[in-house]
Amino acid sequence: MNPRSESNTGSRRVVIVGAGFAGLAAARELASAPADIIVIDRHNYNLFQPLLYQVATAGLSPADIAAPIRSLLRAPNTRVLLDEVVDIDPAARQVRMRSGGEQGYDVLILATGSEYNYFGHDEWRELAPGLKSLDDATDIRRNVLVAFERAEMECESAARARLLTFVLVGAGPTGVELAGALVELARTTLSRDFRTIDPAQTRVVLIEAGPRVLAGFPGRLSDFAARSLRQMGVEILLDSPVERINGSGVSTGRQTVDAATVIWCAGVKARPVARWLGLPAAHGGRIEVAADLGVPGRPEIFVVGDAALCHGRDQRPLPGLAAVAQQQGEYVGEVVRRRLYAEPAIGPFSYRDRGTLATIGRNSAVADLPWARLTGTIAWLLWGTVHIFLLIGFRNRIAVFLNWVWAWLTYGRGARLITGEERRMAHARQISPISSPLLPEELDDHG
Amino acid sequence: MNPRSESNTGSRRVVIVGAGFAGLAAARELASAPADIIVIDRHNYNLFQPLLYQVATAGLSPADIAAPIRSLLRAPNTRVLLDEVVDIDPAARQVRMRSGGEQGYDVLILATGSEYNYFGHDEWRELAPGLKSLDDATDIRRNVLVAFERAEMECESAARARLLTFVLVGAGPTGVELAGALVELARTTLSRDFRTIDPAQTRVVLIEAGPRVLAGFPGRLSDFAARSLRQMGVEILLDSPVERINGSGVSTGRQTVDAATVIWCAGVKARPVARWLGLPAAHGGRIEVAADLGVPGRPEIFVVGDAALCHGRDQRPLPGLAAVAQQQGEYVGEVVRRRLYAEPAIGPFSYRDRGTLATIGRNSAVADLPWARLTGTIAWLLWGTVHIFLLIGFRNRIAVFLNWVWAWLTYGRGARLITGEERRMAHARQISPISSPLLPEELDDHG
Repeated sequence: MNPRSESNTGSRRVVIVGAGFAGLAAARELASAPADIIVIDRHNYNLFQPLLYQVATAGLSPADIAAPIRSLLRAPNTRVLLDEVVDIDPAARQVRMRSGGEQGYDVLILATGSEYNYFGHDEWRELAPGLKSLDDATDIRRNVLVAFERAEMECESAARARLLTFVLVGAGPTGVELAGALVELARTTLSRDFRTIDPAQTRVVLIEAGPRVLAGFPGRLSDFAARSLRQMGVEILLDSPVERINGSGVSTGRQTVDAATVIWCAGVKARPVARWLGLPAAHGGRIEVAADLGVPGRPEIFVVGDAALCHGRDQRPLPGLAAVAQQQGEYVGEVVRRRLYAEPAIGPFSYRDRGTLATIGRNSAVADLPWARLTGTIAWLLWGTVHIFLLIGFRNRIAVFLNWVWAWLTYGRGARLITGEERRMAHARQISPISSPLLPEELDDHG
Repeated sequence: MNPRSESNTGSRRVVIVGAGFAGLAAARELASAPADIIVIDRHNYNLFQPLLYQVATAGLSPADIAAPIRSLLRAPNTRVLLDEVVDIDPAARQVRMRSGGEQGYDVLILATGSEYNYFGHDEWRELAPGLKSLDDATDIRRNVLVAFERAEMECESAARARLLTFVLVGAGPTGVELAGALVELARTTLSRDFRTIDPAQTRVVLIEAGPRVLAGFPGRLSDFAARSLRQMGVEILLDSPVERINGSGVSTGRQTVDAATVIWCAGVKARPVARWLGLPAAHGGRIEVAADLGVPGRPEIFVVGDAALCHGRDQRPLPGLAAVAQQQGEYVGEVVRRRLYAEPAIGPFSYRDRGTLATIGRNSAVADLPWARLTGTIAWLLWGTVHIFLLIGFRNRIAVFLNWVWAWLTYGRGARLITGEERRMAHARQISPISSPLLPEELDDHG
């Protein structure tokens, strides 16, 4: 390795946009590199998205699954900016930020992630919020808990049934995990809390356009997951693309479900990086990258994580998983580090698949591993162990572990707080024309 | 004790408004009484207010200091309603709720608590929010953390200094505890997080209208607290009533402090129960109660906690403390229980003063006990022990204890999350005429 060239320090600027799994991994890889590393994120925290559904179902607190980016990136060469990139000028090598500032770069790493895709029905966004940020999770938690409270005070039985019906659109890992957690919340945790309603009469309906749940998993695991969910009381509608969502519920071609709460879990698209770069967007708005994850024709720009379209050894696109994002971030960090030290380049990116997990409930999961396919308790134990060790920051691990042990022993969920209600009510009074529970702008944070 | 009279069950209704310390204690005392107990609260959680300042300074998560009311009140005779009382008809014996519903009562216990008192300057509410609810605490946490982030990106030194100045109006326990926690957050936790700014240059200014801090404590303890705070770096302005608060800072008669963040800790008033009952309001909007905490002339209505004006043995009004509220709630629960069983009444309410504590920082506090006045580490250890044991719910105690041990060992604060920003930005766009950081309606939740 070359000795550190002091003359480079302070002159080469590596800008990393987004501090999720990919951006954070790249920044850490560059912590001792001879360059100014500038990390820009809209939030001041790194979010452990795989456990977001547990915040939405009151099992964990926001702080259990999020850590301040600044405390994760303390290298002297690294600066963190709380701002949002809204455009890029590739010719001038600058990113433009919402605050109005501009930031020049020599190398740009785009790790902007994805957002929910309503497939042209953006009007559904307000009726069926997705689960991507901590604010989404606490909004959904509030909606779910408020639905039970309203049902408790509702005299009319059809209205009560509607309040106690929760529809999840999309049966990927998020939909499956939310369905299991919601039905458990209703049938165990809340079961003794109410006098008028019986939370066990809650309907959790999982609607999937395709022919099976967990389409990314082998068929045997999908069947196991569907069977387990049905045993827990989840209704599953397969081959049922959603045709209409309105204030009263959800309609598929064959069926209409009256529901007060609808949650969108049906697919994601990349944030608009392709438009910023003036490039054609591939499937899901992603940018097709070269073997080194660089943008073709722009060797100084890399795209990693959900924003990148990258093919695996089997020529199929890599899925939008945390593990893919993390390995891509590490890889690009290494590519850039070698470039800064003028070392020889490394080979093309290759994803090491260590397996995929999805949990189904209190003590069941499915695991698609390179060496085995597991179901039930053994898969759930693996899931729990892996997720505790993946969580960033020692404190979080301990807190999450204790919360889990406690919740498992008592069926209790400690974060059952309805917060943000005063602000929301104040707004409802202020913005009287819109009376829907979620304002469209609240979830509309493109760009 | 009389055998339980079944004929009474379901016919006598005891309505408790507010599930804070006083309301919860009353409801628990009545858990086996032969009556329908109906508890009405605007929130679904009971809040441990003495530790709210730790949520505002990112030391604890909301769920650490709040527990769902339903899980605390599971007696079969008890119903919990998530609603807000907006008026009372004492002649018809009914309370009216925001949802439009009405609830009749045979006995009414008003435990509605207090809110911040801006002493006729309600326009300050939006510029200097108070700290009374979980939403207040997460709003203040966001404002404080965002101020540091903006300072990091600010080039102009006067603007940067203004962003790094935090003013607390009122040097009671809340002001003193917030001042200590803020200065520690800036000087230790955040000290390694920033590149451009030096968080150690943060100014924390505690402004008090009266001649000393912690006016409710003996003079020696006030002096100790002021000396400790000054050693930690807090600026204290005494005899300085605030005359003006505007977008740029705070002015007293003698001094103007430019500050981006102003927090109101300067006194409370009762929620408008007196107006609901058509009674004259005593000092601070409170209702003067009889020896049994009943409303004179209305033996079926009791007022407890911060809403009640009740005199101690020394003829001075009892302070608005959690311990007073809890003892009053227990007492009234016992009074009502005996009445339901037609047992002889108990004697007048008398407050057992076990002492008052206020913490000053990482390892210092003052304790005004009936048998001693303590300062420093010994008082701080007492404070920590007492607060862990006072916290409701075993899980909360463990989580808080671990958070504290961890934070104490590492100087870290785990809950440093800036959340609610997307919603806030959406509103700022929507409601363009008002560009201030907090909308007035957000904190305006009278009645």
